[in-house]
Amino acid sequence: MIAATATMSGAEIRRLSRAAEFAGQTSGVAAGHVQCNIVILPRDTADHFEQFCALNPKPCPLLAISPEPGNYRLPGLGEDIDIRRDVPLYRIWRDGLVKEQCQDVVHLWQQDWVAFALGCSFSFEEALIKSGIEVRNISERCNVPMYRTNIDCTPAGPFRGKLVVSMRPMPAADAIEAIQICGRYPRVHGAPVHVGDPSLIGVTDLQRPDYGDAVTVRRDDVTVFWACGVTPQVALEAARLPVAITHEPGHMLVTDLKNEELAGTL
Amino acid sequence: MIAATATMSGAEIRRLSRAAEFAGQTSGVAAGHVQCNIVILPRDTADHFEQFCALNPKPCPLLAISPEPGNYRLPGLGEDIDIRRDVPLYRIWRDGLVKEQCQDVVHLWQQDWVAFALGCSFSFEEALIKSGIEVRNISERCNVPMYRTNIDCTPAGPFRGKLVVSMRPMPAADAIEAIQICGRYPRVHGAPVHVGDPSLIGVTDLQRPDYGDAVTVRRDDVTVFWACGVTPQVALEAARLPVAITHEPGHMLVTDLKNEELAGTL
Repeated sequence: MIAATATMSGAEIRRLSRAAEFAGQTSGVAAGHVQCNIVILPRDTADHFEQFCALNPKPCPLLAISPEPGNYRLPGLGEDIDIRRDVPLYRIWRDGLVKEQCQDVVHLWQQDWVAFALGCSFSFEEALIKSGIEVRNISERCNVPMYRTNIDCTPAGPFRGKLVVSMRPMPAADAIEAIQICGRYPRVHGAPVHVGDPSLIGVTDLQRPDYGDAVTVRRDDVTVFWACGVTPQVALEAARLPVAITHEPGHMLVTDLKNEELAGTL
Repeated sequence: MIAATATMSGAEIRRLSRAAEFAGQTSGVAAGHVQCNIVILPRDTADHFEQFCALNPKPCPLLAISPEPGNYRLPGLGEDIDIRRDVPLYRIWRDGLVKEQCQDVVHLWQQDWVAFALGCSFSFEEALIKSGIEVRNISERCNVPMYRTNIDCTPAGPFRGKLVVSMRPMPAADAIEAIQICGRYPRVHGAPVHVGDPSLIGVTDLQRPDYGDAVTVRRDDVTVFWACGVTPQVALEAARLPVAITHEPGHMLVTDLKNEELAGTL
């Protein structure tokens, strides 16, 4: 395995993934480049999933979709992208369960498959850090803690389920600035969905996240919760499709887009 | 006394104040018009006060200043303004204490006096309500609760003191929207200064505000705190000037400017 670094380009990271020379987490990799959550579905459920994204834009901010079924390019995100091979690590879902991890899905690819690329919190974390805000999961070098809430997503066809949120604790003054900054990035989850008392959204124990790692919450922190790109994977559990593909959380598609290009765009 | 109404213009409200036919609170009056906190000082302390505003722009967002000492017009805020008479109710300060209320200060006016007009939360409250956010002090028909914090303003000459904040409790989703909206109005206190645990800024009992009225705080509310235009009056207490004039809190100068003109401007 070759080390993927912050100074590599999106294209370089993808070439490593494509050659099965990189299967790692992409946090901090190819700094400044937009990374994406990936969902790949058969055509007969793709329309419902697109609708699910439109109805739930905060957890599912749709950045790109296959030009047509079976086409494994995503030209809006990078000229050479091959979505069958460019994600460092994939999950294979069968009947709503993760059955396998693999480094490419070329052997599974079907002529009716449609790929969806959704915005990711790595983009706004970079904007927060540039503004001098401490992002706890980054300073503690772990995954962001994520929780299933008691908030229902708006269903579409077979896709339904609770909203998943990521949580970043910070002093209140930073939280106020973070809310304003993230409000300018609607295509990467946008402004937070909750601030303050976790129990109001059904989160009972911050030290036991449903996904990712717990982080330190200090006495003078306020907890800030963002809609999270793991939400569509919960919707996939509910949909129980015979087959579906996603990225492995944290192992994202690295694109050629720059984070600053996303500011203010819808 | 004639009733001042929401449909009157700024000029109409000022004419009533000038004729001593209106001395009331101006919340909800002349809807859409910018209202101002007023501080009038002798020239020899005005430079320090202007510096205090520049150093503490969130509590003291300076909208206008007398064209020269002794000039009682504020042409940037309304063509006919006479700052000696157009505030519904004035406070006369002597040696850092409020000694008197009156409806005009014509009899006191000095050729070396300088008037300062500072932005007021009424402007952003209107923006919040337009976005469907409940402003508790308005729905409960009382003054906003205000608290002295443990946060020091940056001093300038004789002007110093703790930051005063106003507090509006609301559900977290509304608080997140309110932060984004108010961030677009830096000239009327801008984004809040604190959200969440009041004790972190030295506020120990929400039901006992230092100024204004207590409001209901519900189980699912988060408390949101804005820098408040009463802060300069605390600085006046500290300065102990032989004489100074302010508005009576809540009885503001109503201008010809429209609130929406302030959005995004610095």
